[in-house]
Amino acid sequence: MSTLWKSRYAQRTLGIKSSAIRELLKVTQKPEIISFGGGLPAPDVFPVERFEEACHKVLCEHGAQALQYGTTEGYQPLREMIAQNMARYGIVAKAENVLLTSGSQQALDLIGKLLVNRGDRVVVEAPTYLGALQAFNVYGAQYVPVPVDNDGLLTERLEASLRTGPKFMYVLPNFQNPAGVTLSEGRRHELILLADKYGIPIVEDDPYGQLRYEGEHIPPLVVLDRENLRRDNGFTLGNVVYLSTFSKTLAPGIRLAWIVAPEDVISKLVQLKQAADLHTSTFNQYVAYEVAREGFLDRHVKLIRQVYRERRDTMLQALHDYFPPEVTWTHPKGGLFLWVTMPEGTDSEALFRAALAENVAFVPGDSFYANNDHEGGRHMRLNFSHSHPDQIREGIRRLSIAVKMQLHAHNRLAIVDH
Amino acid sequence: MSTLWKSRYAQRTLGIKSSAIRELLKVTQKPEIISFGGGLPAPDVFPVERFEEACHKVLCEHGAQALQYGTTEGYQPLREMIAQNMARYGIVAKAENVLLTSGSQQALDLIGKLLVNRGDRVVVEAPTYLGALQAFNVYGAQYVPVPVDNDGLLTERLEASLRTGPKFMYVLPNFQNPAGVTLSEGRRHELILLADKYGIPIVEDDPYGQLRYEGEHIPPLVVLDRENLRRDNGFTLGNVVYLSTFSKTLAPGIRLAWIVAPEDVISKLVQLKQAADLHTSTFNQYVAYEVAREGFLDRHVKLIRQVYRERRDTMLQALHDYFPPEVTWTHPKGGLFLWVTMPEGTDSEALFRAALAENVAFVPGDSFYANNDHEGGRHMRLNFSHSHPDQIREGIRRLSIAVKMQLHAHNRLAIVDH
Repeated sequence: MSTLWKSRYAQRTLGIKSSAIRELLKVTQKPEIISFGGGLPAPDVFPVERFEEACHKVLCEHGAQALQYGTTEGYQPLREMIAQNMARYGIVAKAENVLLTSGSQQALDLIGKLLVNRGDRVVVEAPTYLGALQAFNVYGAQYVPVPVDNDGLLTERLEASLRTGPKFMYVLPNFQNPAGVTLSEGRRHELILLADKYGIPIVEDDPYGQLRYEGEHIPPLVVLDRENLRRDNGFTLGNVVYLSTFSKTLAPGIRLAWIVAPEDVISKLVQLKQAADLHTSTFNQYVAYEVAREGFLDRHVKLIRQVYRERRDTMLQALHDYFPPEVTWTHPKGGLFLWVTMPEGTDSEALFRAALAENVAFVPGDSFYANNDHEGGRHMRLNFSHSHPDQIREGIRRLSIAVKMQLHAHNRLAIVDH
Repeated sequence: MSTLWKSRYAQRTLGIKSSAIRELLKVTQKPEIISFGGGLPAPDVFPVERFEEACHKVLCEHGAQALQYGTTEGYQPLREMIAQNMARYGIVAKAENVLLTSGSQQALDLIGKLLVNRGDRVVVEAPTYLGALQAFNVYGAQYVPVPVDNDGLLTERLEASLRTGPKFMYVLPNFQNPAGVTLSEGRRHELILLADKYGIPIVEDDPYGQLRYEGEHIPPLVVLDRENLRRDNGFTLGNVVYLSTFSKTLAPGIRLAWIVAPEDVISKLVQLKQAADLHTSTFNQYVAYEVAREGFLDRHVKLIRQVYRERRDTMLQALHDYFPPEVTWTHPKGGLFLWVTMPEGTDSEALFRAALAENVAFVPGDSFYANNDHEGGRHMRLNFSHSHPDQIREGIRRLSIAVKMQLHAHNRLAIVDH
């Protein structure tokens, strides 16, 4: 009888496939497996006690409001707090420029809904965040991928892409998911000037910006855009819509993120969000506000930085100690991920299976390329935030066994081919 | 600079207008106004203490899991509890047939995403739930409205609508929003047979089913459909997708609702939900499970029924006492709303303004008609769940003044016209 439904599915569902990787990653739930696969924050740093105090306070003092329907825009004190916090990074926004969303994934969905007609082009990094591709795919986006190197998006390759008339660019400037690379300040300026020249707006996704473990903060695109525009006309927000989240600084289980945009864009997004889920959980917004206030968020972010820096360093050291010299990897200055590049011709799906046999998991690189062109076949994304340092070292040791086996197999095949 | 964005909005945003009513209703926030406008549950019956105990327990015992990312399908024990609870209403579903959503509005959005191509027809009641129209509008739905009377959808008028080849029917059988009417058992059977005959599936929206204040429970469409299909082939779930929610029985601020559907439909909806917001708040799912378990939900629903029944009775009595005889209204056997019908030619928007001047608010009927054909000009939706009985009585007194003024003005105009 389900065929009655199936024959009625809308056109947009045809592009939506069950992710093979997601299915494979399900096996990584087994306790004996060390998983570098998910993008999970470390539960060790969830501020559980602070959450408990906050829940208690919210329910005692604001129970009737916190459990009731709320406005689509979001809880006003939280919008104001977010605007104030961002001001320290030079992002000049009023509460009215902030829309609370049910995680950054909803922000991406709303942006796809707002901007993408079937067949519209979107400039993305290669590789880029898988979830953004999933969100935009629903609306029929086509992609113009621009490669990244250790300094992020290759702006010298951008101009040709902009000439294809894309609807917008989607960019992750800080500690990019999956590659862990950061867009240099020089390239940020180039990107803003090119966006302005071709009139192509930018969606700047910045979930990890606060989680920097070394080096100096680099101004976000939304700030550079404002400085660029102000020279002409004094606009405070213009060509860049900026996304960030509490998922990596407080906890992902509360599904709280936000969009910063000009007020008329916010107003349209509010209408779309109202149709999508009315509003984000009132209760979670009240609780997050109580958790974050009085400087707690800043203190907590410092703790997370310390914990994740140690884990990143452990992973980098273990890669250095265990991995063969033909394999290279990025050196992320923050965030949750690093990106491993194998010699050309390696099959990362075969490597994935070999790794599972050694009880260690990662995400094969293919998933992060927009056009499924298997550029990702020789890459793997490793998450370093979720596992303890001793697990990280052991996991990389196991992974190195799988990697060496694959390289030998590949070399043997190459010899046979020859 | 915002024009750079505006010129890029997707086609689907054109159908999305800011609701004039929503703007008007903002003024109803003033404390001196008694509002029958919103669809708000009474905060008096929010189980605040139980929520506090649940938050405490969840954070102490499951902090690391409850604050972490979760599966798109939903928290498994909650899915199982929902399946068990529904079984008492004859709805035979496994946990795997249940998808947790961020409120029923997201369920409607996902259904629109799954089924509606631009221009597809959807059979709806006239009047019907505004939020469903908003959700389906985004995907370009066209509507085939079928009128309701005191026994719900007029099934005798349905067959012609089904011949137009609609994608599905959207029906609220219990204590319908906005009209408060209930689809009779006889018509439920007719509806199921017609759906089967024409092969048109049904989306059954049942947010208020448990909130019945008089009369006997009537089997949901999803149950009747199953009985009908079983005669042929033993399917447990088939032509009906069923929606319900915790918003009216626990609290709307936690944004928790669910979809019941055949497993292959759930699987597709899961993919769409993953792209839309990854998953519904893990924390809220753990908390709702703790709140609802051990029979609390059932006991609490009994309390809500008692409180709302009194408020409904108060409103019915006040309407009887204060309203002129030309005006009629429905007698809802449950839910949150009743529907007032004024003599033909009344302008409910003018009435709305007159009511505001008397410090009382409602939602004019126009908003609930799919095709904006102003059938709703003589109707108003009154919510009886949110205000205290003394406020209800006073509010209806004030509203009766506005109504009488409008009727006199209308009669005068009619005389002048003549």
